[in-house]
Amino acid sequence: MSFEIRQKDLLGRIGKLSTKKGVLETPLLLPVVNPNHQLIKPKDLRDQFGFEGLITNSYLVWKRFRQEKAPDIHDLIQFDGVVETDSGAYQILQYGDVEVQPSQIIRFQEELGSDIAVILDIPTGDDVSLERAKWSVDETLRRADQAQATITRRDILWVGPVQGGMYPELVAYSAREMSKRDFSIYALGSPTTVMQHYRFDMLVEMIMAAKMNLRPDRPLHLFGAGHPMMFAMAVALGCDIFDSASYALFARNGRYMTVNGTLKLEEMEYFPCGCSTCHGTTPDGIRRMLPTERERFLASHNLNSCFTELQTIKQAVVDGRLWELVEARSRSHPTLQRAFQAMLRYAEALEQETPVRKRKGPFVISSSSLNRPEVIRYRNRIAERYSPSKAKSMLLIPEDALRLFTDDPDQENWISRLEKRRDLHPCSYSLVYGIIPLELVDIYPLSQTEHALTPTKEAVKILKRGIMDSLQLASYSSLIFVARLPWQKEFAKSLHAAVRGKVKFRVLMIDRSLVELTKFLGKNQSSE
Amino acid sequence: MSFEIRQKDLLGRIGKLSTKKGVLETPLLLPVVNPNHQLIKPKDLRDQFGFEGLITNSYLVWKRFRQEKAPDIHDLIQFDGVVETDSGAYQILQYGDVEVQPSQIIRFQEELGSDIAVILDIPTGDDVSLERAKWSVDETLRRADQAQATITRRDILWVGPVQGGMYPELVAYSAREMSKRDFSIYALGSPTTVMQHYRFDMLVEMIMAAKMNLRPDRPLHLFGAGHPMMFAMAVALGCDIFDSASYALFARNGRYMTVNGTLKLEEMEYFPCGCSTCHGTTPDGIRRMLPTERERFLASHNLNSCFTELQTIKQAVVDGRLWELVEARSRSHPTLQRAFQAMLRYAEALEQETPVRKRKGPFVISSSSLNRPEVIRYRNRIAERYSPSKAKSMLLIPEDALRLFTDDPDQENWISRLEKRRDLHPCSYSLVYGIIPLELVDIYPLSQTEHALTPTKEAVKILKRGIMDSLQLASYSSLIFVARLPWQKEFAKSLHAAVRGKVKFRVLMIDRSLVELTKFLGKNQSSE
Repeated sequence: MSFEIRQKDLLGRIGKLSTKKGVLETPLLLPVVNPNHQLIKPKDLRDQFGFEGLITNSYLVWKRFRQEKAPDIHDLIQFDGVVETDSGAYQILQYGDVEVQPSQIIRFQEELGSDIAVILDIPTGDDVSLERAKWSVDETLRRADQAQATITRRDILWVGPVQGGMYPELVAYSAREMSKRDFSIYALGSPTTVMQHYRFDMLVEMIMAAKMNLRPDRPLHLFGAGHPMMFAMAVALGCDIFDSASYALFARNGRYMTVNGTLKLEEMEYFPCGCSTCHGTTPDGIRRMLPTERERFLASHNLNSCFTELQTIKQAVVDGRLWELVEARSRSHPTLQRAFQAMLRYAEALEQETPVRKRKGPFVISSSSLNRPEVIRYRNRIAERYSPSKAKSMLLIPEDALRLFTDDPDQENWISRLEKRRDLHPCSYSLVYGIIPLELVDIYPLSQTEHALTPTKEAVKILKRGIMDSLQLASYSSLIFVARLPWQKEFAKSLHAAVRGKVKFRVLMIDRSLVELTKFLGKNQSSE
Repeated sequence: MSFEIRQKDLLGRIGKLSTKKGVLETPLLLPVVNPNHQLIKPKDLRDQFGFEGLITNSYLVWKRFRQEKAPDIHDLIQFDGVVETDSGAYQILQYGDVEVQPSQIIRFQEELGSDIAVILDIPTGDDVSLERAKWSVDETLRRADQAQATITRRDILWVGPVQGGMYPELVAYSAREMSKRDFSIYALGSPTTVMQHYRFDMLVEMIMAAKMNLRPDRPLHLFGAGHPMMFAMAVALGCDIFDSASYALFARNGRYMTVNGTLKLEEMEYFPCGCSTCHGTTPDGIRRMLPTERERFLASHNLNSCFTELQTIKQAVVDGRLWELVEARSRSHPTLQRAFQAMLRYAEALEQETPVRKRKGPFVISSSSLNRPEVIRYRNRIAERYSPSKAKSMLLIPEDALRLFTDDPDQENWISRLEKRRDLHPCSYSLVYGIIPLELVDIYPLSQTEHALTPTKEAVKILKRGIMDSLQLASYSSLIFVARLPWQKEFAKSLHAAVRGKVKFRVLMIDRSLVELTKFLGKNQSSE
């Protein structure tokens, strides 16, 4: 097996992809290099920018060498790292057709000695009819079968493209079918124009349609995705490989990539970047350069920007903080925010791949963060698996007051004292998690969570529903509700009204001390 | 006047601060340098890191040279840029007292030839009683008066510190009083511990209490603030100068600063950074370094991280996108999010300093963004200044349908056609702005806004209120409501119920074409 997954968060993963030329760590970006003309030397891509692999176009090489013996691709472009070759499918998308046959370009890539190679698929494109899209999917599948019969070099990692364009059902079908064919890497085809038009919400649907129908043990290459502003989200949705011609195309048009979007060099007064290219320079200085130098400067910065974002993403996966990163990035543009909203609909799928224990506790920043795996998982499990205590009374303590227990110098081991009381079932209540039985409070991620939620009407309504559900599950005859903050005192009233006639209700108001609670526990001795 | 404001956004500004040693551009960070021991050479701070100024401690120099002639501070630390000297107030905060008298240290700083110098104030600290805090404010004011009488060198920019700690009313009083004294720079004292405890919401209150009571034509130095994660918000609230010992203190403790928070070197597998220090290195490699080398590496990265964030902030001010940056940064930690919520309470103050026209249209990412200056300003002005048309009917078109007008090949100049109709007052409706009369639609920022709002219950309720208000202001006898998206069709029903008996109501359903609208306008000829 050539792909080993080492760490996961959401649908994202850090993996090792073994090729005949060496191991690549994913998520990774393969810069697109023109085989005939290079703005930045391929050797420098590796030595100076840190890219261990790149992608170039075998069709353009074929056009040049069709009458001669094919060169070794590494020699031709003078690059000693991993080389993926594309097959000419992009040219089909651009010009409608190519001169080469599918089996010809497979054999040619084998002669080139590509480390990763793509079959000649039919990109769906966008703004095409359902019929045309369906045809592109079926024809790509037919070519995939033909390719399997043509391929002789199994030391090359072959890429099976998924098509279907902006029809998610077609993408799903294409992914299911392609998964039945043995490719080392799967790819989602032609979202380039979707990305050019900033239709990131559509991109989420396309990626998820592919991802949820592809075998998870193989990497997914998102073709033509090369802007750092969307890497975090794409990785979170399970994309492992990106390629980028954008770094160079944007450079040609005077555009400067950042994780928050694209800036025009002509409009810049400061470089919001400390990369080795930008360090010590000013936009004004760069504007005064010769056009080729300026283009090379921008391409270099753009590459650094992509590389740094992938490093940032990998460290976030290690920390279990990929959700936080995606949420922050989605604030930089309304279209990314819409994509984030679209991603929330796949919360259950994201939950399934996220590790149960992480190095760091989750941050819950907004009500959107309530869809993060850690929260969904707790809420699901407490509903499915938890059997309530046999105690007569439920004691509900606000989560923010739990800290008082540990801070209180007079009262050691508050929690264990409470847990000894057989008559009481002590729980805490939380805007994030609903009800947390005190015996579970130390389980990850409950006490490690930090949040910034405010008791909005909706949040309080959800909490109330959670409490009512727990009351129904168990057979408590009374509810003792501890309130500390103003909203909790307000909430106590509304809760009282809701449980009237069902259980006995009592409120304990506490402030900065636990005196009230101590008094209460003193009067109501345990029945052990 | 030594401070010239060049560009503004929110309460943030880009300014030029003239000192006897040269001009500094604000917002700026002054790295803290120990006069007796330097991890990174002051000369390198300027040549390699780009810092034109630094801050060092005159009290520590005084302790060393009290018996001798004072050296020139630039010679002593071998730095040819701008040097601010602190006065020993930090030592008061740490050790309770200093050996030097206020007037002594003023004279000493004059002898040192500091470019910017601070009087010896009494830091309030936190966790102190109101009485103690009040005393620190009054004593600082008394010392400010004494300083004004002692100062002989007016070529030095003198800093007047504002105290009051965690008592916002005291901070406000201190700022008002200090503003009456002529200092070139004002400073907000001792929020260090507030920041150490991540009480950024408290910090917002402290800064705003100071800012709203200080003269706006002088820079505001936020003492002891040196983490890049909070610079964007502090600048948005009007802070111009920061100083940081953190870059070095964090380095000593193996901590790596990022705009999203602090990482521990020991926990890192990747550097989420492409700065000239990190480029080409790995955490593992750095961990294997000698302790001093490792500390220097981390300090260097931390300085780059601070510098880059200030550049990012300045470019955001130039673009009019500081709000977007603050909103994105506030997603990185729950405490920053709480601070962002606190900042929303000062939306009106932020509005007043934000330019009316900007280079770029605003992004409205969430309902929080509805508090941004551009939105508040439009809503205020339409309520104050707009006198409605005399037309009998109001025609309400959804903002998303306006694009159909420009895309429609058959219908040129839809808007001007509509505007010729004296009987109709065409307006668009928007989840961001409420009602926009079509004659205003081209005014910045109305048509330049991009948003990601969804028609939540609350958003739709606000829109309805806006429409009802406009109906009351004018004397329309009928309302023609155009609906295109599903929520608009739903909303039409609820609006119909609300206006029943007040005006005639009619709904026009349109889809991807304007046929319905054309038919309607054909049947209802203009009364011109």
